Amino acid sequence: MTGPRFTPLVNSLPATVPFVGPEALERARGRPFAARLGANESLFGPPPVAVEAMAKAAAELWQYGDPESWDLRAELANIHAVGMENIVMGSGIDGLLGSLVRLCVAPGDAVVTSLGGYPTLNYHVAGYGGVIHTVPFRGDHEDCDALIAKAAEVEAKLVYLANPDNPMGTWHDAAKVQAMIEAVPDGTLLILDEAYLEFAPQGTAPAVNPDDPRVIRMRTFSKAYGMAGARIGYALGAAPVIAEFAKVRNHFGVSRASQAGALAALGATAWLAETKAKVAAGRDRLAGIARANQMTAIRSATNFVTMDCGKDGEFARAVLAALADLDIFVRMPFVAPGDRCIRVSAGPEREMALFEAALPQALKTAHTKA
Amino acid sequence: MTGPRFTPLVNSLPATVPFVGPEALERARGRPFAARLGANESLFGPPPVAVEAMAKAAAELWQYGDPESWDLRAELANIHAVGMENIVMGSGIDGLLGSLVRLCVAPGDAVVTSLGGYPTLNYHVAGYGGVIHTVPFRGDHEDCDALIAKAAEVEAKLVYLANPDNPMGTWHDAAKVQAMIEAVPDGTLLILDEAYLEFAPQGTAPAVNPDDPRVIRMRTFSKAYGMAGARIGYALGAAPVIAEFAKVRNHFGVSRASQAGALAALGATAWLAETKAKVAAGRDRLAGIARANQMTAIRSATNFVTMDCGKDGEFARAVLAALADLDIFVRMPFVAPGDRCIRVSAGPEREMALFEAALPQALKTAHTKA
Repeated sequence: MTGPRFTPLVNSLPATVPFVGPEALERARGRPFAARLGANESLFGPPPVAVEAMAKAAAELWQYGDPESWDLRAELANIHAVGMENIVMGSGIDGLLGSLVRLCVAPGDAVVTSLGGYPTLNYHVAGYGGVIHTVPFRGDHEDCDALIAKAAEVEAKLVYLANPDNPMGTWHDAAKVQAMIEAVPDGTLLILDEAYLEFAPQGTAPAVNPDDPRVIRMRTFSKAYGMAGARIGYALGAAPVIAEFAKVRNHFGVSRASQAGALAALGATAWLAETKAKVAAGRDRLAGIARANQMTAIRSATNFVTMDCGKDGEFARAVLAALADLDIFVRMPFVAPGDRCIRVSAGPEREMALFEAALPQALKTAHTKA
Repeated sequence: MTGPRFTPLVNSLPATVPFVGPEALERARGRPFAARLGANESLFGPPPVAVEAMAKAAAELWQYGDPESWDLRAELANIHAVGMENIVMGSGIDGLLGSLVRLCVAPGDAVVTSLGGYPTLNYHVAGYGGVIHTVPFRGDHEDCDALIAKAAEVEAKLVYLANPDNPMGTWHDAAKVQAMIEAVPDGTLLILDEAYLEFAPQGTAPAVNPDDPRVIRMRTFSKAYGMAGARIGYALGAAPVIAEFAKVRNHFGVSRASQAGALAALGATAWLAETKAKVAAGRDRLAGIARANQMTAIRSATNFVTMDCGKDGEFARAVLAALADLDIFVRMPFVAPGDRCIRVSAGPEREMALFEAALPQALKTAHTKA
């Protein structure tokens, strides 16, 4: 008896995965982490109204979720002053990126991103047979001009910018991003990943123009709204672009409870303001910890702080490993020169104090090994 | 400014969607349904322990779910006496079918299913450029022999059997299905969709053989466990087949709360037995209602009863529309000869009584129009 025949493309794909989850690391260690500061989650949790809505929805989960996410999209359209036809929900930005790559990328098609940018984009592009072209970060910032130039050069189907950026935490202002939109080559679509936008200063996001087919924006409830495990995000773009998702998306793919939670979360404006203030304070706390250890905290517009360990990737990886031995879970940029850094989530004082206590020991251990 | 360039395949796809949700129908009607009996959901809800687990998980949703679903897969492996490497979780069978089609179907590749079988499979196959070949139902049953013969004839990558079947509710016994597995042509994979298995008589499912690469089984928490809105299911198959999903799946795509709910649900064995008894009683109740209205209830091994209205598709569609006017949501098979029927979920007495009260009027209205 023989097995199935996979497609030639699938046979060519590696079995590697973009991220190993913290639970897998805990199983390998044989004990849990004391502080979970590595997965770009929000330790401040979801807004209480969202928790309540999701808990209440649990008993109603015998019903499929509304595949049109009508109520939620109506509220988002209201908030963004766009039409509902400008918004499609998905199971987090990861799911939306998968659908978008599928819509645009046939085998051999070019996609441009930053070297060391979000790995899940690259995973999707490879998965559909696309070819990734990268440009380096420039002073720890994504290089808008170089991304556009490369997109023109390779006639990219897609060019990706995360603003604010992950993994460095840096950002460009709205004028710079708008200039990038204006420079998008004909036939290229700019993916503007704004997962961390709520943490950024006013003036980071260019105005939403629902008629502009050159850019599609990705937003999520995973970060500021603290709902990473609920798997819900949305894409915002020109109606003809958004409409294409209906051809390929998993229509019933978003949990009914997550939809209810997201809708409730949108009403939690005072909570959101408080949470942003807590995150900003957490970033300052982390920057202080970095300074006290002769490290440089890169200025961040996200809910994490990327810290320069002052040496190479090998040293930073040793710091990371030593932190894990001390039960602190953090991650780091994968690619040089970003991999001289570690990346730490801002969180409540309990976790900040645990990190503060562990870091000097971890640095000492790493120095000993180096 | 120009828009993005979609792939030629995407440009060739229709914008149609497999199912319009009941919420969309309610919005179009301008009022809610009194009984939701059309979406193959379980009106008996999730087990209370699962509701509790999901409600409790709501506050923990700031964390991404374990992308390996380790605890859940370990328990499922234990239950099925297979290895964890034989199981992959997904966001419902819909999501898993999408991944599986992507793994196997390149443009032009053949897939075999029943004419009038589960439309979402066809949606995925079309979405990846595959070609659907159908064989008719035979006496309201899927025709295993004809499916296999067609698969051999067209050298199908995939052949699909739902057992028990949707939309007719009929089933084959384990010996028949095992014979089908033995007859799978070289290079074809049998998708055995067992979404409704818990409702079927003992002896419906062939033994799970984790070393057999000719068949992949789909299971879900959407039906017997009443968790359709939580979007969680799994595929069960030979390790080398299951491993391929890691190349294409959305690794963080399953809600953390849904994972917790599913794990709790697996422990609710007494609840499951009670629910199966309630569903069986609901089927009997529906069959009685059908008889009282001179209709034939097709014997069902699912949580719905498909009822022959005794005329053609036009008449059954009129019955469906008249039921909707009376605030009863049911669906019906899309394709002749199944479309002579309507399909009604078994549920608690309240909904059964509402259906019982509405059906005679709906039949009268349909007769008047015919």
